[in-house]
Amino acid sequence: MADNDKITELANRIYALDEKVYKATGSNLGRVYQGNKEKCINDLRDLLKSSADSSVLRSELALISNMARTTKKNPQLHKEIMHEYGEIFDEAMAMQEAREGNDIIDPEHAELNMSNLANRFGKDDNLIICIGRSYGCAGTDIGFKLADKLRISYYDVSIMNEILQRNEEHEETDRALFQNKTARTPAQWWRDFRKYHGLSRSDVQFFNTSKKLVDLAKQEPYVIMGRYADNILTKNHIPHISIFITAPKKLRIQRTYHTSKEKLTYKQAAKYVSKEDKAHLKRYAFYTGKKWGEADNYDLTINSSTYGIDGSVDLIMRIVAKNQLDN
Amino acid sequence: MADNDKITELANRIYALDEKVYKATGSNLGRVYQGNKEKCINDLRDLLKSSADSSVLRSELALISNMARTTKKNPQLHKEIMHEYGEIFDEAMAMQEAREGNDIIDPEHAELNMSNLANRFGKDDNLIICIGRSYGCAGTDIGFKLADKLRISYYDVSIMNEILQRNEEHEETDRALFQNKTARTPAQWWRDFRKYHGLSRSDVQFFNTSKKLVDLAKQEPYVIMGRYADNILTKNHIPHISIFITAPKKLRIQRTYHTSKEKLTYKQAAKYVSKEDKAHLKRYAFYTGKKWGEADNYDLTINSSTYGIDGSVDLIMRIVAKNQLDN
Repeated sequence: MADNDKITELANRIYALDEKVYKATGSNLGRVYQGNKEKCINDLRDLLKSSADSSVLRSELALISNMARTTKKNPQLHKEIMHEYGEIFDEAMAMQEAREGNDIIDPEHAELNMSNLANRFGKDDNLIICIGRSYGCAGTDIGFKLADKLRISYYDVSIMNEILQRNEEHEETDRALFQNKTARTPAQWWRDFRKYHGLSRSDVQFFNTSKKLVDLAKQEPYVIMGRYADNILTKNHIPHISIFITAPKKLRIQRTYHTSKEKLTYKQAAKYVSKEDKAHLKRYAFYTGKKWGEADNYDLTINSSTYGIDGSVDLIMRIVAKNQLDN
Repeated sequence: MADNDKITELANRIYALDEKVYKATGSNLGRVYQGNKEKCINDLRDLLKSSADSSVLRSELALISNMARTTKKNPQLHKEIMHEYGEIFDEAMAMQEAREGNDIIDPEHAELNMSNLANRFGKDDNLIICIGRSYGCAGTDIGFKLADKLRISYYDVSIMNEILQRNEEHEETDRALFQNKTARTPAQWWRDFRKYHGLSRSDVQFFNTSKKLVDLAKQEPYVIMGRYADNILTKNHIPHISIFITAPKKLRIQRTYHTSKEKLTYKQAAKYVSKEDKAHLKRYAFYTGKKWGEADNYDLTINSSTYGIDGSVDLIMRIVAKNQLDN
């Protein structure tokens, strides 16, 4: 069987490389494969055949290559060894990948988005970037600057509500409706009830926003802050990139303390950030059934305190730029 | 006061731009600034002066620019409008940034790492990448391939233990010690107790690994999987990039089911992944005092199901490449 021959050959090459590296380095760590040669090669053959033992094989290859890299003082030998290692590595990886079930790509994403961020957007798709963020992490600043740098539209809660209000030409009702600020009289309540089929005001807001986001996605590229946009677009099979931005709570409190309009005390700022976190969690779970801020709901999660506002914009730009280049 | 003049001028420019955009588009959304001109400009001046109202100003600018982008059909006018918008945007942002407390950079990071990932590594620092991952997300495959692509060393728990064992030349004791597999006799227990000053075996492992990681960082660039390396290196003031990799639990269970050595049933795989998640959380909290997998502990959190193994490697490479380029 040809496949079996290939495995035997590769096992022999790995053994020989280990031997060569050991002789070249005289390392105090010794060789990876010690004792009876035939037995070593048999073990290696078993490793190469099994898809389950891939972590052992990986560790052994890594030990050899970590050692191999220390042969730099002899450039000719180093080049030779690294070349041989490169070939062995590629062949061993190819053998493993030929077995199914190894990768981690989400089949649902795959169906929707051709599975890979770089291939997600088709020629006719607009670039849509959904940004979720925790309170005080400067996520809004990042999203706003990002939209400007990409020269695409920017939407957040206040802009979205402004647009919905103007579109509907029911300024009074809708201002109350979307800003959730005005107490309603029983008559107003009844009018709203009939108009919105008995839905709560925040539900109406949710549905109107959903419709608007889907319509907009067909017209133009945009950055959208929050609004459960990631979930809405996924359900409508509209390709998008989903990013969550956060930062350590201590820093978010500090930033809130420094920038709050209401001149909060530090303690009040801390309380406010905690309250916002809890409210976000609750609302997001209600409208999406998912856990807000949990990394596996997003394509990427950024700690803005690492990069700062401009650094975060730059990081996202690099991901997006790749996308744009590929299309 | 010159500053006041500047604010008045900018307020006038914003008002004029809004008017120009409105006339160019004849938009059904109408103008951002309506009614009495003097009052509008006074409101704008207030917005520009206040650091707390930055979100309102931002929304208004975004509304104008979203609208301005729709003037593309008239290229000359579009160019003119976007140029004016660009200047206004930069000036408004500069005014905001001149006020303190606006950015979100972590001062501790700043001290340790010159605050920005792109500037984190000095000329004499080795590139160290710490990767944490949840069970079944292919994080180990990603780390291994990343190290190979960067041509730097790769360390994980088994390699680390192998090295520690060999270094100490106490094969028997240490194999028991680091693999936590062999039950010890009372005599062995007593010997270990004296040797390791009464520390638990996992504590000894932790301290030895810490020391080794710090030593290695001075010698060579590397990728390290888990081992609380992010926390250890931070405490030792050694620059590094910290990445967490995860994927939706459903997919991690599927992958475990497909690749498990022990031919687990789906139910067993699900139980195993949950158990691993819990154990990780507990161990990480014990050794670092932090919550494992929480995005604000890392520079970046990647959902591997979005990118797949090679796509995730590619994503990290792009971040690292920027780093390398900047130095």
